[in-house]
Amino acid sequence: MKILQVKTSSRSVAIDITHEVQRAITEAGFSRGLSFVYVPHTTAGVTINEGADPHVMEDVMNTLDRLVPWQGSYRHTEGNAAAHIKTSLMGNGVHLFVEGGKLVLGTWQRIFLCEFDGPRTRKVHIHWINAL
Amino acid sequence: MKILQVKTSSRSVAIDITHEVQRAITEAGFSRGLSFVYVPHTTAGVTINEGADPHVMEDVMNTLDRLVPWQGSYRHTEGNAAAHIKTSLMGNGVHLFVEGGKLVLGTWQRIFLCEFDGPRTRKVHIHWINAL
Amino acid sequence: MKILQVKTSSRSVAIDITHEVQRAITEAGFSRGLSFVYVPHTTAGVTINEGADPHVMEDVMNTLDRLVPWQGSYRHTEGNAAAHIKTSLMGNGVHLFVEGGKLVLGTWQRIFLCEFDGPRTRKVHIHWINAL
Repeated sequence: MKILQVKTSSRSVAIDITHEVQRAITEAGFSRGLSFVYVPHTTAGVTINEGADPHVMEDVMNTLDRLVPWQGSYRHTEGNAAAHIKTSLMGNGVHLFVEGGKLVLGTWQRIFLCEFDGPRTRKVHIHWINAL
Repeated sequence: MKILQVKTSSRSVAIDITHEVQRAITEAGFSRGLSFVYVPHTTAGVTINEGADPHVMEDVMNTLDRLVPWQGSYRHTEGNAAAHIKTSLMGNGVHLFVEGGKLVLGTWQRIFLCEFDGPRTRKVHIHWINAL
Repeated sequence: MKILQVKTSSRSVAIDITHEVQRAITEAGFSRGLSFVYVPHTTAGVTINEGADPHVMEDVMNTLDRLVPWQGSYRHTEGNAAAHIKTSLMGNGVHLFVEGGKLVLGTWQRIFLCEFDGPRTRKVHIHWINAL
């Protein structure tokens, strides 16, 4: 298991962590099987989407803001209820295949940490299981 | 594999099942690897979010109600279309790491069964794979 | 690993791929463990929901259209921002248990490829890990 530390710079931002996940797998010498990426937080999630145009993830984050506005009639009184709700909508774990030591990603796919209550330093857990 | 039975008491409610998942892992003597929690239903899901303040999951469930109201112009005629839609938004499976026989959860993280069409008795499947 | 090819016939459509996933597992002679279904695209996802009444997945897809309309003030200029956003809401991977060579699905559960920017030919990756 490898734990990444990711600094986020604003309240709501998506950060491409593909390179860091690949590096962890390379450094572990893991060559073939499944990798599991997990965010141990309740106001940040993880998703896979297009990375070539950064506007795509801005649209994802802006749409979540529109559907789940920061200000609302929430019962949680810490002020960040929207961030919790968005986390459940995005999810906090993805699985990825690894072949020949490389993440098997589609042409446009990148892995994003979704910060919903930043700025903070977030953790990302990476595990892997060998295919037999 | 272990199957939990969870009774839900109202139409829309989130139930903390962390203790039951941990107990299944402990009883199986599983010490290190990945655990997979799966809900074999189409009107109930599973998510990971804050458990310290129960208002957080109330906000999640209330927001889903607002975005996907029970009454609406749905084509499914059994009356529970909203419950099916919320299930796909939440998802019906999560993975968790286990180290030293314990679920690796963030400080505030708990595992919730999300009932969208209760009250019912629901099943939760728990599997695990040893890390080699 | 097995890769399915799935043709989609319209912009927004859910296609039941349960039979194809089961066939891949059967042909591989895989009998017990976990199966991982993964869509290597950024404008198509995968979900598990009811298959007996096809109206259920129509309601899921129509609700996503309502929440994330095709036309909107998106920054991504290729015209398919909504498809990317829906992909992150649905997710692009699910895990399933396999026992006795069969997918362990609930009574009503089926696996659906969710096309959000068709018609296209899509890939679905299927992996599995033996339970020890």
